[in-house]
Amino acid sequence: MTSRSTPALRVALIGTAFMGRAHSHAWRTAPRFFDLPLRPETTLLVGRDPDRTRDAADTLGWAEWATDWREAVARDDIDLIDICVPGDVHAEIAIAALEAGKNVLCEKPLARTVEEAARMTAAAEAASARGVVALCGFSYRRTPALALARRFVSEGRLGTIRHIRAQYLQDWLSSEDAPYTWRLDRETAGSGALGDIGAHSIDLAQWVSGHEITAVSAQLRTFVGDRPVPDPRRAGDQQSLGGTAAADAPRRPVTVDDAAAFTATFDGGALGVFESTRMALGHRNANRLEVNGDLGSIAFDFERMNELEYYDGRETRAVGAESDGAVSAGAVDDQAQGFRRIQVTDPGHPYVDAWWPTGHGLGYEHVFTHQVVDLVRAIADGTQPRPSFSDALAVQKVLDAVERSAADRSVLTPVEGSPASTGSAVRTASTDRTLL
Amino acid sequence: MTSRSTPALRVALIGTAFMGRAHSHAWRTAPRFFDLPLRPETTLLVGRDPDRTRDAADTLGWAEWATDWREAVARDDIDLIDICVPGDVHAEIAIAALEAGKNVLCEKPLARTVEEAARMTAAAEAASARGVVALCGFSYRRTPALALARRFVSEGRLGTIRHIRAQYLQDWLSSEDAPYTWRLDRETAGSGALGDIGAHSIDLAQWVSGHEITAVSAQLRTFVGDRPVPDPRRAGDQQSLGGTAAADAPRRPVTVDDAAAFTATFDGGALGVFESTRMALGHRNANRLEVNGDLGSIAFDFERMNELEYYDGRETRAVGAESDGAVSAGAVDDQAQGFRRIQVTDPGHPYVDAWWPTGHGLGYEHVFTHQVVDLVRAIADGTQPRPSFSDALAVQKVLDAVERSAADRSVLTPVEGSPASTGSAVRTASTDRTLL
Amino acid sequence: MTSRSTPALRVALIGTAFMGRAHSHAWRTAPRFFDLPLRPETTLLVGRDPDRTRDAADTLGWAEWATDWREAVARDDIDLIDICVPGDVHAEIAIAALEAGKNVLCEKPLARTVEEAARMTAAAEAASARGVVALCGFSYRRTPALALARRFVSEGRLGTIRHIRAQYLQDWLSSEDAPYTWRLDRETAGSGALGDIGAHSIDLAQWVSGHEITAVSAQLRTFVGDRPVPDPRRAGDQQSLGGTAAADAPRRPVTVDDAAAFTATFDGGALGVFESTRMALGHRNANRLEVNGDLGSIAFDFERMNELEYYDGRETRAVGAESDGAVSAGAVDDQAQGFRRIQVTDPGHPYVDAWWPTGHGLGYEHVFTHQVVDLVRAIADGTQPRPSFSDALAVQKVLDAVERSAADRSVLTPVEGSPASTGSAVRTASTDRTLL
Amino acid sequence: MTSRSTPALRVALIGTAFMGRAHSHAWRTAPRFFDLPLRPETTLLVGRDPDRTRDAADTLGWAEWATDWREAVARDDIDLIDICVPGDVHAEIAIAALEAGKNVLCEKPLARTVEEAARMTAAAEAASARGVVALCGFSYRRTPALALARRFVSEGRLGTIRHIRAQYLQDWLSSEDAPYTWRLDRETAGSGALGDIGAHSIDLAQWVSGHEITAVSAQLRTFVGDRPVPDPRRAGDQQSLGGTAAADAPRRPVTVDDAAAFTATFDGGALGVFESTRMALGHRNANRLEVNGDLGSIAFDFERMNELEYYDGRETRAVGAESDGAVSAGAVDDQAQGFRRIQVTDPGHPYVDAWWPTGHGLGYEHVFTHQVVDLVRAIADGTQPRPSFSDALAVQKVLDAVERSAADRSVLTPVEGSPASTGSAVRTASTDRTLL
Repeated sequence: MTSRSTPALRVALIGTAFMGRAHSHAWRTAPRFFDLPLRPETTLLVGRDPDRTRDAADTLGWAEWATDWREAVARDDIDLIDICVPGDVHAEIAIAALEAGKNVLCEKPLARTVEEAARMTAAAEAASARGVVALCGFSYRRTPALALARRFVSEGRLGTIRHIRAQYLQDWLSSEDAPYTWRLDRETAGSGALGDIGAHSIDLAQWVSGHEITAVSAQLRTFVGDRPVPDPRRAGDQQSLGGTAAADAPRRPVTVDDAAAFTATFDGGALGVFESTRMALGHRNANRLEVNGDLGSIAFDFERMNELEYYDGRETRAVGAESDGAVSAGAVDDQAQGFRRIQVTDPGHPYVDAWWPTGHGLGYEHVFTHQVVDLVRAIADGTQPRPSFSDALAVQKVLDAVERSAADRSVLTPVEGSPASTGSAVRTASTDRTLL
Repeated sequence: MTSRSTPALRVALIGTAFMGRAHSHAWRTAPRFFDLPLRPETTLLVGRDPDRTRDAADTLGWAEWATDWREAVARDDIDLIDICVPGDVHAEIAIAALEAGKNVLCEKPLARTVEEAARMTAAAEAASARGVVALCGFSYRRTPALALARRFVSEGRLGTIRHIRAQYLQDWLSSEDAPYTWRLDRETAGSGALGDIGAHSIDLAQWVSGHEITAVSAQLRTFVGDRPVPDPRRAGDQQSLGGTAAADAPRRPVTVDDAAAFTATFDGGALGVFESTRMALGHRNANRLEVNGDLGSIAFDFERMNELEYYDGRETRAVGAESDGAVSAGAVDDQAQGFRRIQVTDPGHPYVDAWWPTGHGLGYEHVFTHQVVDLVRAIADGTQPRPSFSDALAVQKVLDAVERSAADRSVLTPVEGSPASTGSAVRTASTDRTLL
Repeated sequence: MTSRSTPALRVALIGTAFMGRAHSHAWRTAPRFFDLPLRPETTLLVGRDPDRTRDAADTLGWAEWATDWREAVARDDIDLIDICVPGDVHAEIAIAALEAGKNVLCEKPLARTVEEAARMTAAAEAASARGVVALCGFSYRRTPALALARRFVSEGRLGTIRHIRAQYLQDWLSSEDAPYTWRLDRETAGSGALGDIGAHSIDLAQWVSGHEITAVSAQLRTFVGDRPVPDPRRAGDQQSLGGTAAADAPRRPVTVDDAAAFTATFDGGALGVFESTRMALGHRNANRLEVNGDLGSIAFDFERMNELEYYDGRETRAVGAESDGAVSAGAVDDQAQGFRRIQVTDPGHPYVDAWWPTGHGLGYEHVFTHQVVDLVRAIADGTQPRPSFSDALAVQKVLDAVERSAADRSVLTPVEGSPASTGSAVRTASTDRTLL
Repeated sequence: MTSRSTPALRVALIGTAFMGRAHSHAWRTAPRFFDLPLRPETTLLVGRDPDRTRDAADTLGWAEWATDWREAVARDDIDLIDICVPGDVHAEIAIAALEAGKNVLCEKPLARTVEEAARMTAAAEAASARGVVALCGFSYRRTPALALARRFVSEGRLGTIRHIRAQYLQDWLSSEDAPYTWRLDRETAGSGALGDIGAHSIDLAQWVSGHEITAVSAQLRTFVGDRPVPDPRRAGDQQSLGGTAAADAPRRPVTVDDAAAFTATFDGGALGVFESTRMALGHRNANRLEVNGDLGSIAFDFERMNELEYYDGRETRAVGAESDGAVSAGAVDDQAQGFRRIQVTDPGHPYVDAWWPTGHGLGYEHVFTHQVVDLVRAIADGTQPRPSFSDALAVQKVLDAVERSAADRSVLTPVEGSPASTGSAVRTASTDRTLL
């Protein structure tokens, strides 16, 4: 818990929709539960529409409001700019903010293209030399169960990683009459399911496993080519996800993917399988990750975000560890093997001790609160918080490789800058066999 | 979302430990997500220790602090008193507050005895005539999945209720060396697992099913008769649940139950089975409820608080509803029967539309936020919020019957004031058969 | 696998309905997968109706058939009599068979009353002195997952047992129009859900935990007092469970319980909670058992019969076992606690190595095959197979105590012959407290 | 149940290992539970080693034995030849048997190459004209839950299929010291995980969905390049799956894949994602299939083979169907949406009514029994049982396309003979977009 006497960190938030609400809650809540070295102040909210922005500042708890993000960048009394708007303006705002010496939190995906992301990363690295930090909001990293998964991998519990499978399944576009939103426009959103939710899978897979994707072989699909446009008078927050449109509304073409699927090679030799879709009927938000190593495995599904499944394969390999009706201390236990369902609500689990007694689960918004905590601590420490813009650029390069592969008959396409793209071979059973 | 121009509701909170933190978060958060007719102000925090209370007021966001709850009762600028202290002082504070015209939110269990609860209920009813409301904090009612369960019962989806089984399984006392806390002292806590968590099960079972318990047959157990006393210098928040004590610490007798089990008769004829324990190793907070009717069933476990299992038995009764490879609209579907796992995160589900998009789950503290929402709306509407003190008295009477039955060889013991205690027979198969 | 040169064990089976089919399959199958010291021969099938019995002998693979069980008892070339008929004739057949020197396998519940069961037990004990064995068919003991649960308890993995909860939930009587069967007649069946499925729970609870029930406090319910009688021309196999009756069929009174619930004391101090019902809509055959000790817990549900959930609490008690990103061999792992889902299909698991590769599950009928295996081996070894008639008598005494308690206002009723019925006190928290 | 007076179907089984045992059980068991038009006789067992074959015939219940499969083909008193040996001899035996007028059941994968499979298919089609049938043993089709899934798709419950994801995860090769078996030799086995378990996924995906794979983009991996060779004296049954080898045993190169992953296009436009591996530690036999349509979804995992998850999306689309606390008959129920867990043990479910009462699950070997049932009925009816050799050839062509794609930088590779390979375009979002 943060004292009122702690030095302030004055925040300006750009964006008033779904993500703006989530971030507002995080800025308000983090200092109440965590002991922070800087005390966030919700200073300025920026939106496009004056009336809606004024109301949002009131209800979300921001002291002031404005309609031009440049005002936030220009003010001396702003320490951090939090970007929660669609991807087409990320680069402009983030670069301006960094050049003005503001710390930046930018929602994901970082940009629409590798080129944009690279410019943002360059700006972040230049700013870093001046003590300014930038974080990209791949917030799922702050789910306690996923942070525990990464810890397990780091501790060597999984051994050598062989399989990584990531599915991100949603269903809000299953109906052909689900209305058009800006998320379906390539100019604004960059891509569809791929960049919106697939980007989370890519970031999580690389972060949890500790390995980078080197090449991908991909397919994209747009199952429904146009959608009804909702009445603009109902636009706003609801439009971003879901909402309704009249049956006879005019239809607008969808210019992004509804679904993406790709296999991947990882730098450590692991085989990856990824799938992202907004048409998996019945799955509201199934952000799933499974990792199999030669010593252990983990499995996660955000629909049960407070649980991590863990299989400890080290128990399986010794022989004769049991005798005479007693299990020796430390003995390998080859009759009790199984995925265990860890409730990630114990005090020793990541982020958990700041919250409730064991067994009392957390919700979606906590990941944003944890993101604020880590960011504020990094700012105070002068260290680079992760995922950095460079990490996000790496994700962008994978997205780009996916799109290039899908456009080129799914051919295995190296990720820009990866070992595979700089000459070394991608080894597979097939290529190995052809060499025999 | 509540506007700043909304009239204020000035709150004083008594208690700074676990529950105080949860309630503080709820008072801060409710107006940010819900449109409330009154805007809660976190005016005054009351604790015993001056230093700890001052710090808590700072970090939890209360404008002022005090060390005597009478100050809160005496001040004119306090509209509501929120009681989050152990049960031995509930009655005194609540009655004084109600008599002073303050609205009251009181944590559960309402009191240590039926007599105390009855006096509090009388005070609440007297205050009600003056437009003052009182609510008892059986907060689990505000879990969206449980509110949906009640809605399903109310809609008649379950038909006639036959079975109600409620388990509340925790494990924080499994070790014989888990330290002593005030929760293990009969004078302070009233009872053990029975009143602490069994009370939740009783309230939920009656509320969800719409039926009242009329008689019980019970057993209580204290598995570990004394426990080590933790160093008083480490007392405070942590002491209330868990914590540690030195191996050679002096031990103090446990004067409450570790576990309670009872069967119950309900006024509609249903058969109830209840179990509450703090020694079910591996179960952190398994608050489970299952209800079986002649038309449908529901099942819930708080460890997966965003899910409700529902079985629709109406699908099973028609014959020949399918033919020719097509399922008729409205046809009964007797091959597709099964418990469905409803993710209670859709906009039409109770409380959900104020939060996140579908599939993004809520956490433990949300039930307190929802409690604030319902309480504030009732105050503004001048209606009685539920559970009222009278509802809580009904729970207290069941707790009392459980203790009396356990002390009297488990004999089926009528709940005070229930039909069964006023002369009508409790019918069972056995008694029926003896009449044949 | 049993060779054709192995000495024969000539079997006569009494009964041609559901259980007769299951046992026939077991006798045929056991020698094909297990190496048995005696080779079962399916010599004689006995039923009431000549035509149906002849057909059944043909299709179920029995060499001869008869309509009077006395013929089986009288023949010299029969070594074992397998009793698969309703409970009202168990005693007569079993005692005659044992006196004639036949080994006996008798379906559960052993008898309708304690008196009958006691006579059968006396006959079994007398026969035992002459080298003849008797087994009662509590076949669920032969489920690999439950046999593993017992092994875990025996190995001390669970420590001191505190909680035993057993639910056996079925729903085939949920509809008021589900037809009458002999299972609803007290004269034929002895009792209802209590003796039919509750008896399984009692036997399993005692066998897995290694403790005996000493006293019970019970309620019984008959929710539907009469049921339509199906057309006798459709009688037979189907009538035993389910089936249909015309809407205007005459109705006959139900003279047994639809549901039973009781709490129990165990000789080691554990607290038991039991529930058996045929009206838990949605639950087809949920035979559930959970045991919590101070070192570990197990949980089982027959609807997922190839799985055992196991929580190893020994992992939770050491401190500081991990350091420097590596987990020491044998270290206690306090971040990875959780119920593990063991697929009980590995070669080291009970009975499994005779079947399929790991991960390929078994089905319901396998428990009968395993029962044959254990019985045949015991006959060859001259050892007493379990559950003996004496074990089954112990179950019968619990059933009897349940009925007496339910008829006497649920008062805590000692099981005949248990320590609690011979003078020693049943200690509970309540009685303890009254002594303070 | 099949009468002894039913005409016989005389069977010769080639192979005595794991599959031979499973098929033997099926031939013995099918006529005991199902009413078959022909009564299988287990006439002749063929193995390589005389002693082992004689013993196997004895224990598995075959009347005679031989060591040369040609004997079975030559005998007049054999009606059907059941081929349960490794893939390198499938073609020779099957073609000879068919030419000799024998019905054939051949284990999967049908052959090692498309060329072999095509020759076998030609032989089957030629034989078909003479009233002889051939079936390929993709036995998982006979799992009741998967047969129900197909029925649901056929009934239109899922609508237009968009996503098909199939994972077949095993872990018996996770350890680098797991011993060499013939399954790791390309000459004998054809391929590794791809042909052994991936073939099942391909067949199930096509059969359940009713759509064919038209093109694939694939990767293969061999994680462990050589393995220790077990002592030949321990060879035999155990060698085929698992077993052990000495630590200092000589190692032999693995010439097949350990894992395969591919994306696929289906003829109806669905996007497929497949993964097969023997290195997914913790997964013993997770044969998983999920299908998402625009009206519904299903999900299956063989580790819980008696369950099918089903989501009925038709419930989600109407508005205002509920009112006044009552749900109208046939109304759409938009608050009760969720995957339902169907226990596929009800009498109306495929194959179930021949077995046990509802709720009593089946095991792995039942799928072989059901295969025998369907095969025998087809022989008697003179109809072609499915999967035919032609169906299996289609699977073989997909396996071939997978290998070609993996060897050619994962390029999207048409399946031989599919629309995509005959000129029509594979449409994807990417290619669509490039056309805009």
